[in-house]
Amino acid sequence: MKQTDYTIAALGSHSALQILKGAKDEGFRTLVICLKNKDKPYRMFKVADEVRVVNSYQELTKLDKTILIPHASLISYLGVKAVEKLKLKYFGNRKILNWEADRVKSRQWLARAKLKQPKIFEKAEAIDRPVIVKFFGAGGGKDYFIACSAVDFKAKIGRNKPRPHLIQEYIIGVPVYAHYFYSNLNQKLEIMSFDKRYETNVDGLGRISGKDQAALKNLESSYLVCGNLPLVVRESLLPEYLDIGERTVTASQAIVKGGLWGPFCLETMITDKGEIYVFEISARIVAGTNLYINGSPYTQLSYNEPMSTGRRIAREIKIAIETNQLGKILC
Amino acid sequence: MKQTDYTIAALGSHSALQILKGAKDEGFRTLVICLKNKDKPYRMFKVADEVRVVNSYQELTKLDKTILIPHASLISYLGVKAVEKLKLKYFGNRKILNWEADRVKSRQWLARAKLKQPKIFEKAEAIDRPVIVKFFGAGGGKDYFIACSAVDFKAKIGRNKPRPHLIQEYIIGVPVYAHYFYSNLNQKLEIMSFDKRYETNVDGLGRISGKDQAALKNLESSYLVCGNLPLVVRESLLPEYLDIGERTVTASQAIVKGGLWGPFCLETMITDKGEIYVFEISARIVAGTNLYINGSPYTQLSYNEPMSTGRRIAREIKIAIETNQLGKILC
Amino acid sequence: MKQTDYTIAALGSHSALQILKGAKDEGFRTLVICLKNKDKPYRMFKVADEVRVVNSYQELTKLDKTILIPHASLISYLGVKAVEKLKLKYFGNRKILNWEADRVKSRQWLARAKLKQPKIFEKAEAIDRPVIVKFFGAGGGKDYFIACSAVDFKAKIGRNKPRPHLIQEYIIGVPVYAHYFYSNLNQKLEIMSFDKRYETNVDGLGRISGKDQAALKNLESSYLVCGNLPLVVRESLLPEYLDIGERTVTASQAIVKGGLWGPFCLETMITDKGEIYVFEISARIVAGTNLYINGSPYTQLSYNEPMSTGRRIAREIKIAIETNQLGKILC
Repeated sequence: MKQTDYTIAALGSHSALQILKGAKDEGFRTLVICLKNKDKPYRMFKVADEVRVVNSYQELTKLDKTILIPHASLISYLGVKAVEKLKLKYFGNRKILNWEADRVKSRQWLARAKLKQPKIFEKAEAIDRPVIVKFFGAGGGKDYFIACSAVDFKAKIGRNKPRPHLIQEYIIGVPVYAHYFYSNLNQKLEIMSFDKRYETNVDGLGRISGKDQAALKNLESSYLVCGNLPLVVRESLLPEYLDIGERTVTASQAIVKGGLWGPFCLETMITDKGEIYVFEISARIVAGTNLYINGSPYTQLSYNEPMSTGRRIAREIKIAIETNQLGKILC
Repeated sequence: MKQTDYTIAALGSHSALQILKGAKDEGFRTLVICLKNKDKPYRMFKVADEVRVVNSYQELTKLDKTILIPHASLISYLGVKAVEKLKLKYFGNRKILNWEADRVKSRQWLARAKLKQPKIFEKAEAIDRPVIVKFFGAGGGKDYFIACSAVDFKAKIGRNKPRPHLIQEYIIGVPVYAHYFYSNLNQKLEIMSFDKRYETNVDGLGRISGKDQAALKNLESSYLVCGNLPLVVRESLLPEYLDIGERTVTASQAIVKGGLWGPFCLETMITDKGEIYVFEISARIVAGTNLYINGSPYTQLSYNEPMSTGRRIAREIKIAIETNQLGKILC
Repeated sequence: MKQTDYTIAALGSHSALQILKGAKDEGFRTLVICLKNKDKPYRMFKVADEVRVVNSYQELTKLDKTILIPHASLISYLGVKAVEKLKLKYFGNRKILNWEADRVKSRQWLARAKLKQPKIFEKAEAIDRPVIVKFFGAGGGKDYFIACSAVDFKAKIGRNKPRPHLIQEYIIGVPVYAHYFYSNLNQKLEIMSFDKRYETNVDGLGRISGKDQAALKNLESSYLVCGNLPLVVRESLLPEYLDIGERTVTASQAIVKGGLWGPFCLETMITDKGEIYVFEISARIVAGTNLYINGSPYTQLSYNEPMSTGRRIAREIKIAIETNQLGKILC
């Protein structure tokens, strides 16, 4: 089959605009699958050849000659198990999904890659430093809170309904999200871009003076993601960011057949000592890459055309079709 | 008349560089009108075919074959009434200006569009939550302050000379400025870009630790606009941003003959519950679009060339000239 | 000699990727000189025709037909004296280096240019307002701290090992870094772009509520540079930014033969009164320009191609070669 026989598809959310735009730029037919009332952006920005409105994402079934590009919303809406079983051509390695979603397994993966990670506290009593308490599931940062001691933790957790959570050391520093692309065709790792998230209300808190914060007695921090801000990192940090990206790929090959390929992200904090802590991994495209539809300051170094992560995915599929290696990157 | 007969003009401030660059890219002759000692940037960046230095903006009189693109500085320097009476071809609907400038009317407009708005307190005694106190006029955020109670309000207002002000509920969250363009030629709404303002000193406060802030006893927050920072919003928020933009246009058609067209901006805050509050509307180009001279991550989806809001305006005028509909977009 | 006879070189750090990319875009051969284990980014991003790994930057010796572009890392690793003596073609005026590095001399330079500067306190006893205490040398902001009184200063300085430092008035406001390029060929000053630094931990502090900061008893601010964030400034500030840039160039010509040319940066704070304070000058390319590999919102106004500061340097050298004026810009 040739390229024009294939359609590239994404669920209408997260980074679908970028993925579809990239696919069109590489010459593919494109399809977006939307829930009712979520299709407007995909009609306004003309990057989908077809906008298909469904009543439920469960309707997703076998689509011949269609390659689905996964993103966080796909996984969040359908669940890992449903995605693993989808009868569709899927870009990336589905076997890695479980290693990303399970917080214990993802820590093992990052430990194997010898990445610095925040400490995890199994019991509240053990808290001996600032921690951030994260609830499981797809809340996008909702209700997360900082606690400074076991007492503080107990006071704050009591305000939330009981549900599974993680008590993670709070690394004091600045957040940096590093976007990578690993090619299974040429075995090379690329740095695509960097961003930081824009979270409500923590990214608004600093705009309120300490005095006024003290007067707002019920002010609690929260971490709901609203968007993303672009940034570049100090050039002398790039060797380390490349290293930790490579070690992550190498470690993935030890834990899962075929390992990780395609786009992924290491969510990091840089401390005042210049140490890079990895507090999470996303084993697929992240929304921070939406900043760089026209290329990032990094992809602009290597490519003579606007290269987003979405387009890089489509380019990989195109090369695989031309060189008859599609089996290497779909599963 | 044909396109080359027209000149596109702007006052030398606010977003004039973007407007003129966009007009040149679309093939128009360009003119910038500057106060003395304000012309340097317009000579350095060669986007104006003519730089005209005037002693006072009052000198602005009938300019044949010249289309003036309004921005906040035009309105702030001349006043709404003077702009309404200017004997000039004006891009946009001048009748809407009064609805934007009058805080009571603009609330009515947004209420008709069913947008969530912060509560207004008529009397200080009624303050039952954090509020931001805004002075009327073109201070650009100068002296605005946060108060947490009637007592706090009275202490802080006393430091300022008496003048008209608004007591508005302070929405805790993150600011997001949404840039739209509504075409009166094809009746379509486009999302152009997003930004957040860069304000002194509130965007510097967070860089001072709580401990140090406490030691700086006279530290008060202020909101003077110094610039703008780029951002993208979470893709799942786009349907709602499109909705509220459309409702704003529809409501404008009910309050003013012809309604609103061209660029406009909804100034929003997103709370930790994901609610979008609109605390202001700008019924013309905003300075946050200056970030995107070369196109934004949103216009790059739809256009195969660098499309700023300034250029989008010129494109609209160009199409109107070609299709003989100039009367629909000038007034 | 013609252009193809020359190689443009940079040390592998700071802004080397941008410099080399710009040189290649202008048609030069490029060379990057790296310490061991620092070469990976220069192999990944293919902007260097040659990657030369050395054991020590001291190995840098006479390289015929090679033009070295200096940046902060060159000066920081080798020291001003060694750079002054390097037997290499050097872009820029080496005589200015000492005026930049010596804090007393740089203040004299800025004073001659009539720039507003923060006050310096010779003795801790004299502290009568908030100050920032900066240690000399290439720590990149490490250990800097804010003090609000002589007592506070003594408590905090005691935590650090004794070493030379500067006690500088802390200007409350927002940081803005202005990037300029002054051409010695056409005697014109250009505004290239603006950024703000991304520093750990101060740019993360605001994300922690005042209440939580109070509970984190040992939380101290620090200023280690991790990256850069893009911004545009309010257009009405551009005349002043152009003025202070021009005055800086003019003053440089009075203090040093030939004065300053090429890229430079004024590090400023804007107060809530709209005053622009200059707290530092960099007399060469700064890392904030790395944001704009593809051009900034400012260079996009003037150039019909992607123009970074790195490329602007290469363009200047190219023009000098073509017009036989290389002696005017190398030394």
